[in-house]
Amino acid sequence: MEDLVADVFARACTSRLVLEAVGGKWGTLALAALAEGTYRFNALRRRVDGISEKMLSQTLQTLERDGLVRRDVVATIPPRVEYSLTELGTRVSAKLIELIELVEGEMPAVRKAQAEYDAR
Amino acid sequence: MEDLVADVFARACTSRLVLEAVGGKWGTLALAALAEGTYRFNALRRRVDGISEKMLSQTLQTLERDGLVRRDVVATIPPRVEYSLTELGTRVSAKLIELIELVEGEMPAVRKAQAEYDAR
Repeated sequence: MEDLVADVFARACTSRLVLEAVGGKWGTLALAALAEGTYRFNALRRRVDGISEKMLSQTLQTLERDGLVRRDVVATIPPRVEYSLTELGTRVSAKLIELIELVEGEMPAVRKAQAEYDAR
Repeated sequence: MEDLVADVFARACTSRLVLEAVGGKWGTLALAALAEGTYRFNALRRRVDGISEKMLSQTLQTLERDGLVRRDVVATIPPRVEYSLTELGTRVSAKLIELIELVEGEMPAVRKAQAEYDAR
């Protein structure tokens, strides 16, 4: 059943699936990397440290299907496949980067909280 | 090995783990729900449609350990356990809500992209 109003809290809502793709570890990292510019598959795989070929391929397919990532085949010999953000992908990625920067900047506070929790 | 500068692209970076907790489906939904106010466990479980008791319990523990969620035991009879956001959790949650609102607002564009992709 199609949800008419997107409500991420409702389990049947499509927006929750998109948020999962975007917010999942690999989706977030792929979008954040592509915010740096166009990448070929293998270069993107090196940038997103630890991702498997299969997982990157699946991640990019989902993001492409959701309209966040563009896949272009450049007619060189051999053909080159390039990935980049769409306009919507650029806006989603910008929000994700704000989140990443917030979390990265607060890591000293997070580590302190973790140490206190573990010492209880 | 502890990372000195947080770099979410590096697989050994602690910030990536925190981002996973925050950005994972249940972490995101729990933080967004708690932005609405203090919740008791069962009320939060009803708000985050589809989450199991075990998963909510694990999610809250991780968020508490990371310093994003507070767990308070109120000395009533019987005692009441309440969950709320810390100051850091409030800031992280605000960013997540911006992301959720962006995705929810763009669902027509996402659905259009999905239909076009599936029709190829």
